Amino acid sequence: MLSVDLPDTVRDALHAPLVDHHCHGVRRDDLTRAQFELLLHEGGGAAPPGTTHFDTPFGLAIRRWCAPLLDLEPHAPPAVYLSRRTELGAAEVNRRLLTAAGVVAFLVDTASEDADLLAAAEMGRHGGAAADELVRIEHIEREVAESARIALDYLDSLGEELTARAARAVALKTVIAGLCGLDFDPARPSRGSVIAAANRRLADPKEPLTDPVLLRHLLWCAIDVARERGLPVQFHTGLGAAAGLGGFSGAGTAAWAAAELHRTDPAKLSTFIAGLQPAGVPVILLHCYPYHRQAAYLAGRYPHVYVDVGLALPHTAAASARVMEELLELAPFHKQLFSSGCRGVAESCLLGALYYRQALGTALAARVGAGEWSAADAARIAHMIGSGNARRIYRL
Amino acid sequence: MLSVDLPDTVRDALHAPLVDHHCHGVRRDDLTRAQFELLLHEGGGAAPPGTTHFDTPFGLAIRRWCAPLLDLEPHAPPAVYLSRRTELGAAEVNRRLLTAAGVVAFLVDTASEDADLLAAAEMGRHGGAAADELVRIEHIEREVAESARIALDYLDSLGEELTARAARAVALKTVIAGLCGLDFDPARPSRGSVIAAANRRLADPKEPLTDPVLLRHLLWCAIDVARERGLPVQFHTGLGAAAGLGGFSGAGTAAWAAAELHRTDPAKLSTFIAGLQPAGVPVILLHCYPYHRQAAYLAGRYPHVYVDVGLALPHTAAASARVMEELLELAPFHKQLFSSGCRGVAESCLLGALYYRQALGTALAARVGAGEWSAADAARIAHMIGSGNARRIYRL
Amino acid sequence: MLSVDLPDTVRDALHAPLVDHHCHGVRRDDLTRAQFELLLHEGGGAAPPGTTHFDTPFGLAIRRWCAPLLDLEPHAPPAVYLSRRTELGAAEVNRRLLTAAGVVAFLVDTASEDADLLAAAEMGRHGGAAADELVRIEHIEREVAESARIALDYLDSLGEELTARAARAVALKTVIAGLCGLDFDPARPSRGSVIAAANRRLADPKEPLTDPVLLRHLLWCAIDVARERGLPVQFHTGLGAAAGLGGFSGAGTAAWAAAELHRTDPAKLSTFIAGLQPAGVPVILLHCYPYHRQAAYLAGRYPHVYVDVGLALPHTAAASARVMEELLELAPFHKQLFSSGCRGVAESCLLGALYYRQALGTALAARVGAGEWSAADAARIAHMIGSGNARRIYRL
Repeated sequence: MLSVDLPDTVRDALHAPLVDHHCHGVRRDDLTRAQFELLLHEGGGAAPPGTTHFDTPFGLAIRRWCAPLLDLEPHAPPAVYLSRRTELGAAEVNRRLLTAAGVVAFLVDTASEDADLLAAAEMGRHGGAAADELVRIEHIEREVAESARIALDYLDSLGEELTARAARAVALKTVIAGLCGLDFDPARPSRGSVIAAANRRLADPKEPLTDPVLLRHLLWCAIDVARERGLPVQFHTGLGAAAGLGGFSGAGTAAWAAAELHRTDPAKLSTFIAGLQPAGVPVILLHCYPYHRQAAYLAGRYPHVYVDVGLALPHTAAASARVMEELLELAPFHKQLFSSGCRGVAESCLLGALYYRQALGTALAARVGAGEWSAADAARIAHMIGSGNARRIYRL
Repeated sequence: MLSVDLPDTVRDALHAPLVDHHCHGVRRDDLTRAQFELLLHEGGGAAPPGTTHFDTPFGLAIRRWCAPLLDLEPHAPPAVYLSRRTELGAAEVNRRLLTAAGVVAFLVDTASEDADLLAAAEMGRHGGAAADELVRIEHIEREVAESARIALDYLDSLGEELTARAARAVALKTVIAGLCGLDFDPARPSRGSVIAAANRRLADPKEPLTDPVLLRHLLWCAIDVARERGLPVQFHTGLGAAAGLGGFSGAGTAAWAAAELHRTDPAKLSTFIAGLQPAGVPVILLHCYPYHRQAAYLAGRYPHVYVDVGLALPHTAAASARVMEELLELAPFHKQLFSSGCRGVAESCLLGALYYRQALGTALAARVGAGEWSAADAARIAHMIGSGNARRIYRL
Repeated sequence: MLSVDLPDTVRDALHAPLVDHHCHGVRRDDLTRAQFELLLHEGGGAAPPGTTHFDTPFGLAIRRWCAPLLDLEPHAPPAVYLSRRTELGAAEVNRRLLTAAGVVAFLVDTASEDADLLAAAEMGRHGGAAADELVRIEHIEREVAESARIALDYLDSLGEELTARAARAVALKTVIAGLCGLDFDPARPSRGSVIAAANRRLADPKEPLTDPVLLRHLLWCAIDVARERGLPVQFHTGLGAAAGLGGFSGAGTAAWAAAELHRTDPAKLSTFIAGLQPAGVPVILLHCYPYHRQAAYLAGRYPHVYVDVGLALPHTAAASARVMEELLELAPFHKQLFSSGCRGVAESCLLGALYYRQALGTALAARVGAGEWSAADAARIAHMIGSGNARRIYRL
């Protein structure tokens, strides 16, 4: 698949199975064009009249790289692609694309209750891979809020549920960036302020949580659980955080719509991160674009910070090599991870893995070619980023 | 002109006439070296003693690309260039450079009252192109402030003038980023606060407007007019916004001098933009550099947001390909526009068009060459960005 | 050393001796692996168990480029490299690496009282170069705070000491970015607030200064001295500022740990910079990454602002060409400077100079090759950035 000139050892390391340490389930049902287009879009909205979400780098990449996997010519028109997709059926398409991604283990955020999305185990089965669960803490909170009657019950249940769910998971995950920004007060909120906020919350538990006090309380509870169980905590930042959950998550669109990109810059998490250093809870920064240089800096600066550019690679597609290059400017090699950030359609998983391998391969080829890195180091680094680091951090 | 290897259809699409959807008039008179240098500079100041504004990427680009159009060798020294410029006369120089830009329509911000600048129709005549007007709302406000006696008159006249001027224009334009930053309160200000601010304003109507309450009121009035007439609203952001109006705009330098670059980041407009989505008024982000990735994200996220990198291309000159590449990372192809951002001298128009074609051509050549995009898609995209999108949005 | 294809005049200009206008002393003693690794790290912390700071771009660059200067093969393993380093002894290693950097003059921040670091004159002697001193104003303040008894003494001594030390120095330097961020109130603090802050300060003079009022007062005193003596003032920004002093500066780690990267963006200094324009005190922005585009903009916008990417080049190493390219997008050529930002180990000086020459050489080769710049201009620009600008600004 890789067109760049690389020593065999490096090529083998790039083609070795990946650990996809952050993805979501994909739709199990056949999709209309309108449904498919919504799933291509970060904000989950329709394209303006007379335009199409296929006219994006991501859309062209689907036509280029996924079409041949459905037995079509590269660059097949959208209508042809979607017609063939329906002809094959979603199950066959998912099987082909997830398998082609070359993933050995999926870590899946299963927060969505949409029954049309594959569960973690199904993702693994379709992709010929193992699968583990990521617990999205804001999802737990919603369940707790809907069942609790009084603030004290709510607070107790929160801790219990987080603990219970963490027992079956490999990491916790927060989307606080998109709900109140990463410039939140890094201190643990006072008990009194949390109880007051919990009382307000229980008056309207169906709404997505946007109260910064409760979001901070939830996060600190998650940190406690993570520390106790030795689990990492993933943070959506940048691109993925401000865009919200994509078209398949009806509820809460209003809250996400207001997320401001610059408030999802992981640099704004600096003081919170510095405060966590003694506890040693691994902090994983997801997506990060266009603040991936800031994230790489933090991964270099703090021993407990890790970074990927997840969704940024399939979405920048033909331009993804530069995003990877910018991550490689400063991030230590033992701190970088691969994720597809896959959501809604299996195309995003395939393209996440494909552009990851292409972008990293291009970077390695340039360095080995210029004599900057030895082939042995390049192969070792490809292995670390592709799976070794994730196996270590998540104890897979 | 393009040295990259491209299929004929793509090359033709790149060389097709452009719609320059945002520019200013250029000087009609012959210029001394001091005058010319001031017009090269974003802030409109003189270079430190012993240095010259020709020692910039923009300055070298003038010597490289404009000199041959004045019958000189490439890289002619500044003194030779300026002497030849005077010899030919400003009218001939303007005709040559504007024509060589290959523009079919200029949309011109005519806010400056400087009689030495070509008016919109003259820009069109010199460049062999059509010309339309952009109404800068802060300019209207100044006229109204100078003639109104009491706050109520001022407020009534503001609405009337905006409506009257919009009737002859293809878009409204705001420079609020440079006057109070884009981190302004996105809510419509209260009637009471506006009247109080208007009273303060009328005490000193000759000053440039920097009061955030009145600037927000003015902007919301413009949004109302734009919605009613189906017009887009252009926002200066980044580079162009913080730098102000260039050396040819004496008044108001003090106010502009205080503009802070990071407050012109279009991401800071996120909440305002989200609030406008139901109204559907197109928001056009101009220049954007170094926040063009943020702008591209917004153009992808919101159906009513459009983006260009205008002035950033001629000013980064030999390095402009990367700026274009970064815009192409995320911006949907139906959301990108071409503008020269031309100001003061026709050189900026020629170089805006030239580097736009070079940068986009380089990007397309890389993608077609790697098999990422088909030639047909590349040609179609070049057409959309170069003129198609502008014709649709501005209804030309 | 340069592998790119360049005309001889340009190559000669790149290889000409550099003025390193900002560096620190390096360790004179032999180092254990643990000590050496700490000095590789921006934050001065150990790598997580099972990992090494050699697994960074900087670490690979040491093995690639410094190993041959110690008579080893390129890419020698860390253990082999460090063993050979000890075998040769620190004095010989420092001599070889500093000399190979090709520097004609070092401007050295000598704030550290660590006797294990080479003093300015020693840096010069080992590197076969002249050496001058940079006065770090926060260091002066610490000395004054420790000896003063009452606030008025403290304030008087501050001015006197700054004046006395400036008399022997070529520039003043501030690390305010890492102590309270660059988003400080740009106004000179009131006399009353300064005296109150000084009283608080004298109660705990051993702590690093983090009080914004005193930091601002100190900075304004420094500006006064700089204006009087015609000296520039250097500001740590970005990368270097948030990371603090590296592992060799025990005291004050706590304060530095809290520095937030986004608050070291030089754009946040805009209003302060604009206010200094009438005084004409040169402001030098150091490191700047990942905000070097913002710094380049300021250098273009204001006649008294200068810029380098210092430490960012050796730390991004194999990826440094793009950082240089981004600086060249907008920064006037008479406003750019070279510095190694060298700290702790002579490897950082050698790599700073090496990647500077490689990165600028690559940029010049691309421009001359494409016909964008003439060879004569390219050679002239290389000379300006490498030494000419520094000689002019620092009056060397």
